[in-house]
Amino acid sequence: MSRSFDFTDEERRGVYRAIHERRDVRAHFLPDPVPDDALARILDAAHHAPSVGFMQPWDFLVIRDPAVRQEVHRNFACARRRSAEIYEGGQRALYDGLKLAGILEAPINLCITCDRARPKGGGLGRQTDSAVDLYSTVCAVQNLWLAARAESLGVGWVSILDLEPLKATLGIPPEIAVVAYLCLGYVSEFRPLPDLEEKGWETRSPLDDVVHFDHWGCHKK
Amino acid sequence: MSRSFDFTDEERRGVYRAIHERRDVRAHFLPDPVPDDALARILDAAHHAPSVGFMQPWDFLVIRDPAVRQEVHRNFACARRRSAEIYEGGQRALYDGLKLAGILEAPINLCITCDRARPKGGGLGRQTDSAVDLYSTVCAVQNLWLAARAESLGVGWVSILDLEPLKATLGIPPEIAVVAYLCLGYVSEFRPLPDLEEKGWETRSPLDDVVHFDHWGCHKK
Repeated sequence: MSRSFDFTDEERRGVYRAIHERRDVRAHFLPDPVPDDALARILDAAHHAPSVGFMQPWDFLVIRDPAVRQEVHRNFACARRRSAEIYEGGQRALYDGLKLAGILEAPINLCITCDRARPKGGGLGRQTDSAVDLYSTVCAVQNLWLAARAESLGVGWVSILDLEPLKATLGIPPEIAVVAYLCLGYVSEFRPLPDLEEKGWETRSPLDDVVHFDHWGCHKK
Repeated sequence: MSRSFDFTDEERRGVYRAIHERRDVRAHFLPDPVPDDALARILDAAHHAPSVGFMQPWDFLVIRDPAVRQEVHRNFACARRRSAEIYEGGQRALYDGLKLAGILEAPINLCITCDRARPKGGGLGRQTDSAVDLYSTVCAVQNLWLAARAESLGVGWVSILDLEPLKATLGIPPEIAVVAYLCLGYVSEFRPLPDLEEKGWETRSPLDDVVHFDHWGCHKK
C-alpha cells in the first residue's frame, strides 16, 4: 500500500543513483556555462539541509570571475607543492600524477562558509558539541553535491588550500569559517569509480568492516 | 539529447523530493521493525559518501538493544535539562515543549564516528584543514539521511548528548570521535515544515540573503 509520502521506484532509484554515481570531479570539467536556474536549484537544495536548531549557519559564494579563480589557483598550487613533501618514491610519483582540482577549468567555483556566531537557532543543540554548526554546513555541501549530480553537473571538493589567504582573496570576514571550496560544471563523463580508487591511491573498505552492532567491535549481528 | 549519465525527470524529482521532504524526525516514529535489507542499503549509501583522500574515516554503530538506548536516553535527559538553563520566559516555555529526540521510540539508533588516525588515504588533502576527515563523516550522515527518506524511513539527529559518557556506553575507543547520533525508523508522517519552523522556534532565511557573487557581501549578480 503506497502512501503519499512514499517514493516511486524510479524516484528512489534517482536518490541511489545520485549517491552511487556522484564523483569528486577534477579532470572532466567542460567550459559550458551553468544556467542560472540550475544553479539556483542546487543552491536551494543546499539551503534545505538540516541545521542544528534550524540555525542555517551557511553562506554560499558563487565565484565566476577568472581573476579571482586565478588567485585561488595560485593558493592551491602552493599548498599542493608543500603537501607533496610528505610523500616519497612510488607514492610521490602517484601523488604528482593526480589531478587534484579543476579551479580554472570549471566555470563556477563555490566557497561554502559557516557563521559560527549567527544568532539564528538560539543555541539549541549547540551546548554539548561545539562543532555541530560546522557539521550542518557540511550537510548543505552534500545536498548540493547530490542535487548537482541529478542535474548532470560535476562537483569537486578542493581541500588543498590555505584558508587564511583564501579568506583574504574572497573578502570573507575573520569570524566566518571556510568549510568547503568546490568546483562546479558540466562534465564529459562521470567515471565508474572514484579517481583515487581508479588510480590505485586507495581501495574501498568492505562495508561490514565499518558496521558494529550495539557495542563497538561487535561486527556480527 | 540525453546521455547515459543523465537522470530521467522522475529520477531527478526523487533527488529533490528527498532533499526537500527530508525531516529531522523526533515525534513521529513508529515501532515497526526496519528490514535488514533497507538498513543495509542506507548504510551502503553512507559508505559511498565522498571522503578526503578516499580515507573513509567512518564507522557505523547500529543500536537496537533497549538497555543501551535507555542509557543513552538518560544521557540525553540530563544534557537537555542542563541546556534548558540558558533560556528564559517564553523561549524557555517553547524549549520545554519541544520534542527533541526519539531515542526510545525509534527501533534503531545509529552512532556515526570518525577515526581521525585511520591510515587510509595517506593524508591526501588533510594538511591545510584538520577538520576535513570529520566533514567526510558528515557527508556520510547526509547520504544516509537522504537514502532513508527515499525508503520512507525517518531520521533525527540528536546533538544534545554528552559525548564522553556516550562513548563509554557504546565502548567507543578514546581516539575515535563521535560525529552524529541518529534515531531511525518508520514514521506516521513527514511534516510539511521542519519542526522548529512549525513550532515557531526559528524561521527559514531567504536564499538570496546567503548567496554572494565573486566577493563576500556582493548579493547582486
